[in-house]
Amino acid sequence: MLHAVIMAGGSGTRFWPLSRAARPKQLLSLVTEKALVVETVERLEGLVPPERVWIVTNAAYADRIRALLPDVPPSHVVAEPCGRDTAACIGLASTVIGREDEDAVLAILSADHVIAPAAAFREALGKGAAVVEESPSTLVTFGMAPTRPATGYGYIERGAARGEVGGVPWYRVERFCEKPDLETAKEFLAAGRFLWNGGIFVFRAAAMRERIGRFLPELAAGLPGVADELLGDGAISAETFGALPKISIDFGVVEKDDDVAVIEAPFSWDDVGSFAALERVLPKDEAGNVGFGDRTLLDASGNVVIAGDGHHVAVVGVEGLVVVQTADATLVCRKEDAQRVKEVVDRLKGSGNEGLV
Amino acid sequence: MLHAVIMAGGSGTRFWPLSRAARPKQLLSLVTEKALVVETVERLEGLVPPERVWIVTNAAYADRIRALLPDVPPSHVVAEPCGRDTAACIGLASTVIGREDEDAVLAILSADHVIAPAAAFREALGKGAAVVEESPSTLVTFGMAPTRPATGYGYIERGAARGEVGGVPWYRVERFCEKPDLETAKEFLAAGRFLWNGGIFVFRAAAMRERIGRFLPELAAGLPGVADELLGDGAISAETFGALPKISIDFGVVEKDDDVAVIEAPFSWDDVGSFAALERVLPKDEAGNVGFGDRTLLDASGNVVIAGDGHHVAVVGVEGLVVVQTADATLVCRKEDAQRVKEVVDRLKGSGNEGLV
Repeated sequence: MLHAVIMAGGSGTRFWPLSRAARPKQLLSLVTEKALVVETVERLEGLVPPERVWIVTNAAYADRIRALLPDVPPSHVVAEPCGRDTAACIGLASTVIGREDEDAVLAILSADHVIAPAAAFREALGKGAAVVEESPSTLVTFGMAPTRPATGYGYIERGAARGEVGGVPWYRVERFCEKPDLETAKEFLAAGRFLWNGGIFVFRAAAMRERIGRFLPELAAGLPGVADELLGDGAISAETFGALPKISIDFGVVEKDDDVAVIEAPFSWDDVGSFAALERVLPKDEAGNVGFGDRTLLDASGNVVIAGDGHHVAVVGVEGLVVVQTADATLVCRKEDAQRVKEVVDRLKGSGNEGLV
Repeated sequence: MLHAVIMAGGSGTRFWPLSRAARPKQLLSLVTEKALVVETVERLEGLVPPERVWIVTNAAYADRIRALLPDVPPSHVVAEPCGRDTAACIGLASTVIGREDEDAVLAILSADHVIAPAAAFREALGKGAAVVEESPSTLVTFGMAPTRPATGYGYIERGAARGEVGGVPWYRVERFCEKPDLETAKEFLAAGRFLWNGGIFVFRAAAMRERIGRFLPELAAGLPGVADELLGDGAISAETFGALPKISIDFGVVEKDDDVAVIEAPFSWDDVGSFAALERVLPKDEAGNVGFGDRTLLDASGNVVIAGDGHHVAVVGVEGLVVVQTADATLVCRKEDAQRVKEVVDRLKGSGNEGLV
């Protein structure tokens, strides 16, 4: 059976002042009225029911996520006592879900990505499940055809076709490429066989457990104890979890493995890495502005403008800015500096303004 | 005796969102912790005591001004039921104060100008009073030597010297010039004998009553009735006041008169016409930013940034912007568009957002 594992651990500062330590990106309503994590679960409707959804998050966010998603069993919202990167997260899910469902197939998703249309996304995940039915040991990834020479994403080089499910080919992964520089990204875009790596996987839980046993034996040794805790009283201790090796699933497993396949994604995907990225996922007005909240825009073009509840933001005669207002903090920067929000957060932390971060 | 008449009627929208219909510029603390109208009264300390200060304002602001200035007799805060421009305002002051002090000399001031140093200002007003003691019929104006080719101010062309008080010459006014275009303003600056007209006057109340009788007989006829109301129960009726002709003192009297003198002001003067003008009156940081409130500025230069109480404004990598945050509204514009705030206010009025203006 297909289970969804949604990774929702990020504490991202790239959306300050909307996001805060206590209100990370996955809990923000950036694109619709709903929090991104809720969108992520609802996107699965018809493919994976809430009772087969698992959400792995920081202990600090678990109760908020449970409240937002009453149909997901509370015990399926897994509270990590500390961050141990994605291999531990995915390994734990493969262990725990595997104990309940020996033939479990897992779809690994992120809680803070914007994906559309949902039907095409579900269809693609279904194709991934069909691949692992046919080829049980294979790890399936999904590659998005790039629409621009993005330097902020990793890429997957598509190799030879290995088969076809429902008329859709699946390919051998030639190699995974780190985030490229602009020149390389342009080459990738031109070459046509390089796809964005969205960090979405489908595999059999047993296949992942086998890989972790092979590539990360220390992690494999530690996971059963953590699974015992989780399936016991539901609380994972910092001692057992904190003792797991901290490594990403990409470095630790996927990039080392030879039996990795890629399906070309028939959906648009965006990890919305900053306020500037909202331009790609929100509707534009006739002057190219995006945003939400009460706003007055006069001769303003290409801006991202967000006004908090009960607040009005007026923007006159400016171009290419990010303006974000919340109850206690406002950010104004150029779109190309949207990533520098982190510096603001660091500055605030270092100047007695921890309450704002 | 020297009395001060402070005109505080403006409802200015050029400082939205700091200024509102209910909180006009003269009630804002733009330059120090004190409201501009309070600064204006305190600047007179040692020359005109509060009991000889009169403040003419809109009925809507009178109580607020009385509360801010407890030492000014409440009856001296004159509440106009409607705006009738400066000739009516000055004519009324000349009539009312003249009834209490036959030899009254009036200094006419604006509630929302920034003037420094205060001692030089007081000395100049004192010189004006000395001129009208020597030449009782003369209307004295004060001209500020221009420091830039300003197009937002009227100018006074200085004529021949008519005399000297305490070593300072006073001159005949050759003519008053409307706000010039940039070319003309540059010529004025180069010529050296053109001075900014700050709208500051010193004259004997009797001399002004005589002028109004001569140039504006309809106003002269209406003023005694209004003065009776004010000196009676203190309330001016809209019927009598609204019946007065609406004209400025410049058009109605000063520009028509031949006996007008000008003293060169030994103080700096600024009418702070917009947020951009705050650059001239607030201290700059090393990158040329000005403002107040809790702020974080990273690689930001030449900006005017104002954060409201309990709010933090972070500005990254931008130049030449105005960013003003208040509890319910935020403005972002280029400094050169600072005057366009009026358009925002108009837009808000026309779109059901009257509560914000």
